[in-house]
Amino acid sequence: MVYDLIVIGGGPAGYLGAERAAQAGFKTLLIEKRFLGGVCLNEGCIPTKTMLYSAKIFEGAKHGEKYGVVAEGIKLNHEAVMARKNKVVKMLVSGVRSQLKSCDVVVIEGAGEIRGKAAEGYEVNANGETFVGKRLLIATGSESLIPAIPGAKEGMEKGIVLTNREILDIQKVPDSLAIIGGGVIGLEMASYFNSAGCKVTVIEMLDHVAGNTDRELAQIIMKNYEKKGIVFNLNSKVTGIKDNTVFYEVNGQASSVEAEKILMSIGRKPVTFGLGIENIGVEIERGRIKTDETGKTNIPHVYAAGDVNGVSMLAHTAYREAEVCVNNMLGKKDIVRYNAIPSVIYTNPEVASVGETEESARNKGIDFEKSTISMRFSGRYMAENEQGDGICKVLADKKNGRIIGVHMIGNYSSEIIYGAALMIETEMRVKDVKQLVFPHPTVSEIIREAIFKF
Amino acid sequence: MVYDLIVIGGGPAGYLGAERAAQAGFKTLLIEKRFLGGVCLNEGCIPTKTMLYSAKIFEGAKHGEKYGVVAEGIKLNHEAVMARKNKVVKMLVSGVRSQLKSCDVVVIEGAGEIRGKAAEGYEVNANGETFVGKRLLIATGSESLIPAIPGAKEGMEKGIVLTNREILDIQKVPDSLAIIGGGVIGLEMASYFNSAGCKVTVIEMLDHVAGNTDRELAQIIMKNYEKKGIVFNLNSKVTGIKDNTVFYEVNGQASSVEAEKILMSIGRKPVTFGLGIENIGVEIERGRIKTDETGKTNIPHVYAAGDVNGVSMLAHTAYREAEVCVNNMLGKKDIVRYNAIPSVIYTNPEVASVGETEESARNKGIDFEKSTISMRFSGRYMAENEQGDGICKVLADKKNGRIIGVHMIGNYSSEIIYGAALMIETEMRVKDVKQLVFPHPTVSEIIREAIFKF
Repeated sequence: MVYDLIVIGGGPAGYLGAERAAQAGFKTLLIEKRFLGGVCLNEGCIPTKTMLYSAKIFEGAKHGEKYGVVAEGIKLNHEAVMARKNKVVKMLVSGVRSQLKSCDVVVIEGAGEIRGKAAEGYEVNANGETFVGKRLLIATGSESLIPAIPGAKEGMEKGIVLTNREILDIQKVPDSLAIIGGGVIGLEMASYFNSAGCKVTVIEMLDHVAGNTDRELAQIIMKNYEKKGIVFNLNSKVTGIKDNTVFYEVNGQASSVEAEKILMSIGRKPVTFGLGIENIGVEIERGRIKTDETGKTNIPHVYAAGDVNGVSMLAHTAYREAEVCVNNMLGKKDIVRYNAIPSVIYTNPEVASVGETEESARNKGIDFEKSTISMRFSGRYMAENEQGDGICKVLADKKNGRIIGVHMIGNYSSEIIYGAALMIETEMRVKDVKQLVFPHPTVSEIIREAIFKF
Repeated sequence: MVYDLIVIGGGPAGYLGAERAAQAGFKTLLIEKRFLGGVCLNEGCIPTKTMLYSAKIFEGAKHGEKYGVVAEGIKLNHEAVMARKNKVVKMLVSGVRSQLKSCDVVVIEGAGEIRGKAAEGYEVNANGETFVGKRLLIATGSESLIPAIPGAKEGMEKGIVLTNREILDIQKVPDSLAIIGGGVIGLEMASYFNSAGCKVTVIEMLDHVAGNTDRELAQIIMKNYEKKGIVFNLNSKVTGIKDNTVFYEVNGQASSVEAEKILMSIGRKPVTFGLGIENIGVEIERGRIKTDETGKTNIPHVYAAGDVNGVSMLAHTAYREAEVCVNNMLGKKDIVRYNAIPSVIYTNPEVASVGETEESARNKGIDFEKSTISMRFSGRYMAENEQGDGICKVLADKKNGRIIGVHMIGNYSSEIIYGAALMIETEMRVKDVKQLVFPHPTVSEIIREAIFKF
C-alpha cells in the first residue's frame, strides 16, 4: 500500500504532524527509532519539569518558615524523584501512543531510511521492510553536541561525562557536578542538583548565562543561584577533560575544576545523518535541513519540521511547524511566524521571554522604548515571594507603539508568557493593552503595570 | 483652593483613579475613612492570598512524599502566618501611600461627606473641614452583607459570628468553623482553615457552591474539598443562630451545626450610606449608585467606580472603571466592557473563569459549542499534579467561531486566565487561536488542546 504521508521521527513535530495528517484523512505511517515522544518527552522537557517540581516542593518546605510553615528532617529523596519521573514519562508516552492509535496512525519502531523515489512515492526502509509514501515529513529532531574537546569522548565512555540523556537517569546524586555550558539545559540541571545537595559549578564560554535571554534577566538568575551556592565561571573556554577534572581558560589563564560527574550541555545539533536524505537530494545547510516558511524542503512533497530544521529548536515551535507542514500538504496556505515564540527556563525563579530582546531589537535597527518594573509591584508576588527580586520588561516599537518583546523573571512567568506572545502575534499596541482587565491579585498584572509606565 | 477632583474612598477604584487623574495633571484630593488600599488590600484579596500561599506551602510539604520530598513534624504556624500577612499588607499599603504622594495626590484620612454644590464645585466635608472639587469620584466600595437572621447580630456582638474583616485577624485557629455562604470568600476561607486543621462546615442556600462559576467546575472544587474533610450542606437555608449553633432547613427539614466560630460570607453590598449623596441628588438603584458605561452618575461631573456601582464587585473591575471615569473626565472617550473580566478563586486547586458560562450563554440565547478537556493532557500538569482532576472548558459562538468563555480548574489557572480574557476582548476565533504558539510544557497549553478539539 501507498501511504499519503510517512513521518520519520516520533517527537513533538513527528507525532503531532502524524496526528493532524491522519485526522485530516491521510493514511499516515510514523517511524520512530528510539522512543515515541522524542527527546522532549523522554529526555528533555517533561522529565526535567517533573524533577524541578519536586525540587520546588523541597525548597518550599525547606524555606517554609518564611511563610509560617515548620518542618523537620526535610529531604529530597532522589530515587523517589526518579521513580516518579519515570512514571510520568511512561504515562505521557502511552498517551501519545494511544492518541496515534485512535487517529489510525501506523507506528513502526525502528530506524527509518529513505531509499529513493519510485513512481508511486518515496521509499522508506525500516526494520527490513520498505514503505512507500506520497509525502514525507522529516522530524528527526536533534542530539547533544559533543565538542572536540580532548578527553570528552573518553569521559563519556567512562561514564563521567554525561549528556542530558544520561543525567536524567542518574540513580545517585553526585557529590559534585561540573556543568559545561550555562544555557537553558545547564541552568535547569544546575537548579535541580543544587537543590538535591550537590556542589555545582557552571563553566560558560560567554560572559553571561542563559544564552540569548535578556541580559538583565540572565544576571538576576545567576545572582539567585550564586546565593544558593552554585559557582559560575564565565568567559571560560574548556580546553580538556581528564578523568574527573575539567580544564579551562579564563582570559588566557589556565584553571580547572574537579567533579564527580561532568554534564555536557553546550547545545544541540539537528539529526540529519543516517536517514538517507542524500538519496533523494534534500538540501542540507550548515548541518540542518533547509526549509522555507511553509516547512517545504527543496524536494517536492518532502517537508521537515522541528529541531531538524535548526531554526528554533523548541518543542512548541516543532508543534506549530508540523501543523504548518500538514496544512500546506492539504493545500491550506499557512506559514510559521517566528516573532512570537515564547521561551521558558524552569529555574526557581522561572524566566520567560517572547519577542525581541533589547539586543536583538538594536541589531535589527528597531527604534524601541522599554519599561522595566520590579515584580514587587504585584500584590500576589509580594504575598508569595519573600525577598523576591523579579522584574518584568516590556519593549515597544516607538514608530507604532506595538509590543515587540516581553521578558520576565519570577515565578508563574512560565504560565504568563503565552499571553504576551498573543499580544505580539495580534500586533497589540501599548494603548490596547491598557484597556485590558487583568485579574487581581495575580503576577500577570505586572505586564499591565509595566505598560502603564510607558 | 478648588480641586479638579475629589475622590471619596481609597480602595482600588479610589487610589488608582486618584493616581491616574493626578498623573494627567488634575489637582486631586483623596478621602479615606478607614485604611488606604480599601477592603482589597486590608481585608480581602491580599491578606487572603498571603494566608492561602502559606497553606499551599504547608500542603506541599504535607503531601511531599508523592513528589519525593520527605519531612517530619510539618506544622502550619497560624500566628506566624498572621504576622507575615500583616507585614505584607503594611508594605503594600505603604506602597499605595508613597505612590499617591509621588503623584501629588493630597490624602485625607477621615470620613468624607458631600454637603452640596456651590458655584465653584462640590463641597465635601472631612475631619470638620470643607473641600471643594470640580468633579467627584465616588469609590466607597462595599461591605459584608449581614442578613436579618435571628441571632446574627447578637452573635457578632459576642465575637462568635465573624465577617471577612474579623476572621482575617483571628489569632487562634478555631477547632471548628461554620461558614454561611459557599461563594468565593467562603470557599477561600474554608480552604485556609481546613489546611490549618480546623473542622469546617459550609452552609449554602443554593444547590451548588462558587456562585456563578461554571457548574462543572463548582462540582469539582467541592469534591476536592470534601476529600479534604470539609462538610458541605447545600440547599440549606439558615433560619437562626444561637450562641455557637447555626440552625438551617434542608428541603423543609430542620438541622443544625455547632461551631466555635461562624463566618458570615453571603455577599457584599455597596456602601452608599452616610456619604451625603442625597445632598446632590445622586441616583441610587437597588442599593447601588447607578452609572452608565462611562462611569457617570445622573449628576454632571459626578462619577462612581468600583463595588459601589454594584456591577462586578471585583478589584480589577474597579481599576478599569476608575480609569474609564478619569479618561472621560479628561474628555477621552472610553467605556468599560464587562464581557472579558476574569475571575479567580484561590483555592487549591485554583478556579478561574472569563466570559460566558454555559448557563449565561443559554440565558442570552447564544448558539454556542463547547470543548471540555482534562488538564491531564498537559505534560506540566501531569508533572506537578498527582491524581489531579482539573479541566478546561472553552465556549465558542457557533455563528462566527469567536471564543466567548474559558473556564479552568487546576493550579496556575489564576495566572493563565488573563490570556483567555485577551482572546475574548480581541474577538479571536477558534481558528486564530490554533495559530498561536503556547510554550511547552506549560499548563497554559491546555487552552490550545481544548481549541483543537473543536
